[in-house]
Amino acid sequence: MSGNSFGNIFKITTWGESHGKALGVVVDGCPAGLKIDEKDIQSELDKRKPGQSRFTTQRKESDKVEILSGTFNGITTGTPISMLISNIDAISKSYSDFKDIYRPGHADLSYDEKYGVRDYRGGGRSSNRETVGRVAAGAIAKKILNSMKIRTHGFVSQIGSIKSEKIDFKYIEKNPLRIADKSKLKEMSDLIDSVRKEGDSIGGVIEVHSVGVPSGLGSPVFEKFDARLASAIMGIGGVRGFEIGLGFLVAAKKGSEVNDIMLGKSKGKIKFKTNNAGGILGGITNGNEVVLRFALKPTSSISQVQKSIDKKGKVRNLQVKGRHDPCLCPRAVPIAEAMVNLVLLDCILENQTSNIKKIK
Amino acid sequence: MSGNSFGNIFKITTWGESHGKALGVVVDGCPAGLKIDEKDIQSELDKRKPGQSRFTTQRKESDKVEILSGTFNGITTGTPISMLISNIDAISKSYSDFKDIYRPGHADLSYDEKYGVRDYRGGGRSSNRETVGRVAAGAIAKKILNSMKIRTHGFVSQIGSIKSEKIDFKYIEKNPLRIADKSKLKEMSDLIDSVRKEGDSIGGVIEVHSVGVPSGLGSPVFEKFDARLASAIMGIGGVRGFEIGLGFLVAAKKGSEVNDIMLGKSKGKIKFKTNNAGGILGGITNGNEVVLRFALKPTSSISQVQKSIDKKGKVRNLQVKGRHDPCLCPRAVPIAEAMVNLVLLDCILENQTSNIKKIK
Amino acid sequence: MSGNSFGNIFKITTWGESHGKALGVVVDGCPAGLKIDEKDIQSELDKRKPGQSRFTTQRKESDKVEILSGTFNGITTGTPISMLISNIDAISKSYSDFKDIYRPGHADLSYDEKYGVRDYRGGGRSSNRETVGRVAAGAIAKKILNSMKIRTHGFVSQIGSIKSEKIDFKYIEKNPLRIADKSKLKEMSDLIDSVRKEGDSIGGVIEVHSVGVPSGLGSPVFEKFDARLASAIMGIGGVRGFEIGLGFLVAAKKGSEVNDIMLGKSKGKIKFKTNNAGGILGGITNGNEVVLRFALKPTSSISQVQKSIDKKGKVRNLQVKGRHDPCLCPRAVPIAEAMVNLVLLDCILENQTSNIKKIK
Amino acid sequence: MSGNSFGNIFKITTWGESHGKALGVVVDGCPAGLKIDEKDIQSELDKRKPGQSRFTTQRKESDKVEILSGTFNGITTGTPISMLISNIDAISKSYSDFKDIYRPGHADLSYDEKYGVRDYRGGGRSSNRETVGRVAAGAIAKKILNSMKIRTHGFVSQIGSIKSEKIDFKYIEKNPLRIADKSKLKEMSDLIDSVRKEGDSIGGVIEVHSVGVPSGLGSPVFEKFDARLASAIMGIGGVRGFEIGLGFLVAAKKGSEVNDIMLGKSKGKIKFKTNNAGGILGGITNGNEVVLRFALKPTSSISQVQKSIDKKGKVRNLQVKGRHDPCLCPRAVPIAEAMVNLVLLDCILENQTSNIKKIK
Repeated sequence: MSGNSFGNIFKITTWGESHGKALGVVVDGCPAGLKIDEKDIQSELDKRKPGQSRFTTQRKESDKVEILSGTFNGITTGTPISMLISNIDAISKSYSDFKDIYRPGHADLSYDEKYGVRDYRGGGRSSNRETVGRVAAGAIAKKILNSMKIRTHGFVSQIGSIKSEKIDFKYIEKNPLRIADKSKLKEMSDLIDSVRKEGDSIGGVIEVHSVGVPSGLGSPVFEKFDARLASAIMGIGGVRGFEIGLGFLVAAKKGSEVNDIMLGKSKGKIKFKTNNAGGILGGITNGNEVVLRFALKPTSSISQVQKSIDKKGKVRNLQVKGRHDPCLCPRAVPIAEAMVNLVLLDCILENQTSNIKKIK
Repeated sequence: MSGNSFGNIFKITTWGESHGKALGVVVDGCPAGLKIDEKDIQSELDKRKPGQSRFTTQRKESDKVEILSGTFNGITTGTPISMLISNIDAISKSYSDFKDIYRPGHADLSYDEKYGVRDYRGGGRSSNRETVGRVAAGAIAKKILNSMKIRTHGFVSQIGSIKSEKIDFKYIEKNPLRIADKSKLKEMSDLIDSVRKEGDSIGGVIEVHSVGVPSGLGSPVFEKFDARLASAIMGIGGVRGFEIGLGFLVAAKKGSEVNDIMLGKSKGKIKFKTNNAGGILGGITNGNEVVLRFALKPTSSISQVQKSIDKKGKVRNLQVKGRHDPCLCPRAVPIAEAMVNLVLLDCILENQTSNIKKIK
Repeated sequence: MSGNSFGNIFKITTWGESHGKALGVVVDGCPAGLKIDEKDIQSELDKRKPGQSRFTTQRKESDKVEILSGTFNGITTGTPISMLISNIDAISKSYSDFKDIYRPGHADLSYDEKYGVRDYRGGGRSSNRETVGRVAAGAIAKKILNSMKIRTHGFVSQIGSIKSEKIDFKYIEKNPLRIADKSKLKEMSDLIDSVRKEGDSIGGVIEVHSVGVPSGLGSPVFEKFDARLASAIMGIGGVRGFEIGLGFLVAAKKGSEVNDIMLGKSKGKIKFKTNNAGGILGGITNGNEVVLRFALKPTSSISQVQKSIDKKGKVRNLQVKGRHDPCLCPRAVPIAEAMVNLVLLDCILENQTSNIKKIK
Repeated sequence: MSGNSFGNIFKITTWGESHGKALGVVVDGCPAGLKIDEKDIQSELDKRKPGQSRFTTQRKESDKVEILSGTFNGITTGTPISMLISNIDAISKSYSDFKDIYRPGHADLSYDEKYGVRDYRGGGRSSNRETVGRVAAGAIAKKILNSMKIRTHGFVSQIGSIKSEKIDFKYIEKNPLRIADKSKLKEMSDLIDSVRKEGDSIGGVIEVHSVGVPSGLGSPVFEKFDARLASAIMGIGGVRGFEIGLGFLVAAKKGSEVNDIMLGKSKGKIKFKTNNAGGILGGITNGNEVVLRFALKPTSSISQVQKSIDKKGKVRNLQVKGRHDPCLCPRAVPIAEAMVNLVLLDCILENQTSNIKKIK
């Protein structure tokens, strides 16, 4: 009800505040018998953690994960997997200035309106730091999916108005911006450097491809595969738009242009002429690559002086010092991949009971 | 699990196929004491029903709703409200041709892949006709919201590449395209007429504004207000993109441009300089107007001959006769409004327990 | 939230009031590919319906079920199965007397306290008639379970203080009391006749055995198999006690007497010396017969004059005329079987994802 | 799905194994603004912890709770409250003997059948130790309930065949057996001492009264207040029977004896002549005291030599050494109180939206 859980069968519950004692996640519904250890989790968390390059915040968060339950001798037992990440480098002092002032673009105001009380240190629960739990849980999902030859690749496809033109999955983890088009690296890096120097920030777009996705995932009505992806992605802080396949481009197109023509069947798999639908028909995967995109707003915390108001409604000047990413995109890639993997795995588990012939 | 339910407290479950005996919805969790009758429901269903103009399908569906339970003497009793819409003008014959052929753009293939069996008449459960249940349930939500001075206005803001430039809520129900900009009516009508004559179809964009929305709705993490809206809207057939506030435009913008500056407080309500966030901060409403947009693909059923394959993978020529909307947008407006109202009401009900001071 | 749904994967939602237009159920999550028709459902409903003998109410309810969706050519399609039972013989007049008076033992008062409004005709939603939806849904579950050689047998094991001593499953449907011990039929019949003549009613105990239940069903903590059975059974109107295996007798026993000793393994199945645990260990089935028992209170509607109060708290004399079962037990048997079968099937579906090796 | 969560609005998720690194609970949906600190939680945990007297196991578990999230300056913020209890005195060695042998009465076998893998140390997840999370969460519920003058009193009402005859709530926490009838202390203590000396164990009955419960809690059908209590209580390890009000005694009674006659209304509260229904009518509380009872089996771990089998089905002799409670009852009291309080609070939160007049 309070929305800290995600998934129907592979269900995760995240908890923790930016500057609290720790953050974590409980994964309930992971099948027994999976080999998993802290290294599998840590490698994904390391992609999300700050301080990886000059393009991300210089805060130091070791983000070391500890598995507290649910595995025995390195094997999942079917019981809840609790994972904990302690907070270490939390400098709360720099936030106490904002105790009574609402930072523009942040959830300070809306939390106060909803709850009447707020942990103002580093944004509390609204901090991007909350996503460590998602990434940790996603790492488990990823391990299962990879064993089924399903792979999810996220990358930054646009920063500011610079758009990438090529997709090379292998390049993604080789560059600090997590773009897939090497030819745009310099231009994009320069743009981020420039906004940072201005004490400003910049938005962008992230694209995610899942390859090897079987047909039949998702449900016909409210839990369409695309509806679940949309919910998963829009649940990441700062996302303002989501699209699947052709996305908003379909508005200006005709049916004869958009329909993906089927060309034949080979080894039980349908061959399509195009993939305008992004791998989904009527809310259910069709065996094509799943392709989605989402827009991330520029970081709200900028070091320029902004006008705002305090709790009493009085106008105040405010300058957010702290250490912030000039562009949220590079670190959002592993978070998006985690969310997509969580949806994929959950739908695969659900799909085990779609037909009476499967039931044992 | 099978995704035919929506909502946490005000929970609806829809059922029914395009050419089955009937379709319907069960609304569980409607508070007792609400005055409601079939007229309140029927007026919303009438907006969705086909044959309203030459821009929509000429199928005749009377879509007459019957309330079977949950009210007594015109007042809700707190028990489930079951509503039924019988099928009358269902011409199944025209569909039996597609028993074994997969129509491009439709769910025929993916349903077969998932379930191994499929009601091929009129798309079965994947038909747009499924949404009568949502609209009927949304009418109840609307009645409650309106009594709280919350009003949701959906309209078509783009057809093909023609975009509207003005917003006049009062004009929406006065024109068959449900656009809000009178000056574009002729151009848009001509475009639809032209694609229909070609035996083709055209996409578009719908925009929804909710005014009078209180602050504090939605939850911080997975059930962010925008994530719930995205799930609600992407769960409508044919939607390919969703955005909130500035949407994808944020990608090319700086933080100093995007942050909505707060100007002060008046009568307990915050005044903002802009509404780039579409009324939502950190997943929780901020008291501003909620503004969202979504892209609808062109109707998949077109009367041009298309290539496709049959169940066995053999290539076949196919021509979808039937009676289809050349543009899905006008009839999608009441469906979108219904989904947004369902989210709004559910979040209002959830919000009754957000603070200990509210509990009685 | 309002509690009209039951089950996690095979999820049912019932609706309808005793004297409304109709009652029904929506089954969401039934696997596709199951052969089912109205006869499969009707045969179970006929066991529940009134007027079967002099021991049950003489109300005439034809309880004819109609399947409105979710099947095509007699096969389930994976979409929601909506079933409807119209109300015919509803004599509402006899209830209008109780519009403002609270009948002792009934939910009249508590509904008014909760909802502030109440459909007083025949108890409205609190009527035993609500269970038609459960029985209809349970019939589908039963069909699947039977195909897996799992069979659930409910019977009346006690009426008043007369307890049965033998269990003959075959006798159950051959006698109007649905007892399993032929030798007690006369004594029990006489007791019921006698209380009916007094204008009174009598309680009893029902026992349910499920044979052929595989090991591994249920979950370790809150959704223990026995906890789910308890919830299912206590959710039937008038149940005051529930027990599994030895039940309350364990209180007076020692561990050395209660522990079920395992004797060996044969054909993959464990052999136990006893079944004191009723087939469940740590909340998970162990392959033994599942055995439960529950106590039903005597019918609250009796024709003797009783004291009560009206809405304003004024003391009133009241005589419930209507047509009521002198003993709820015989007709409760198919309801209990339905609930147990719903739990069994749901747990079997859940169990499809318990181990990574099962996932495809 | 895997059943480690409980509650609809005030939702708890427990995790952890007996001999893992730690155990804990995440509470999601606690209203903001509640004053709570670790002392409030610790006092309840101390009642549950072992080693309190010679009647309970002599294992030393400090069970010190740490609140990791969800509060700020001692006030709940509306975000998930994560609580952790580290494991200290876990002697795993004494359990490795049972790695391959199934202990009679324990979940060893059924876990292996379900998951194919099992943390055999101290029963792993099936250990009573899992309940620390429930008790910690229940302490928060209790604090809210107490502020509303709702108080839950659990006590041991029967040990072996010795039944208590009087109820003195004040005596409960003054004696190591948590009985409410001082006159039975010696007899019951002697019985426990005697079975312990035999290397055996003994069962019992616990009774719980909740006073000050408002009318209107619970829902009409599957989530009847009594069905929720039954699920809550049967979800505690070792419970074999549950009853409400008169319980199984109703079987032998007539309607004229069982119906609770209403005598009048005073200060908005109904006065009843009796409370045979245990405070619940039609699944909804009626304002009377809620009274339930449940039977606990004798501890399965006994030090007598028992026959059993190993994983391969071979017969083995087994003697469970460890340190075990000769009677589970005294330590089960705080667990039962916690579960009842969780149900009460959740139903109170749900009830905030039962009538349209309450919605703001």
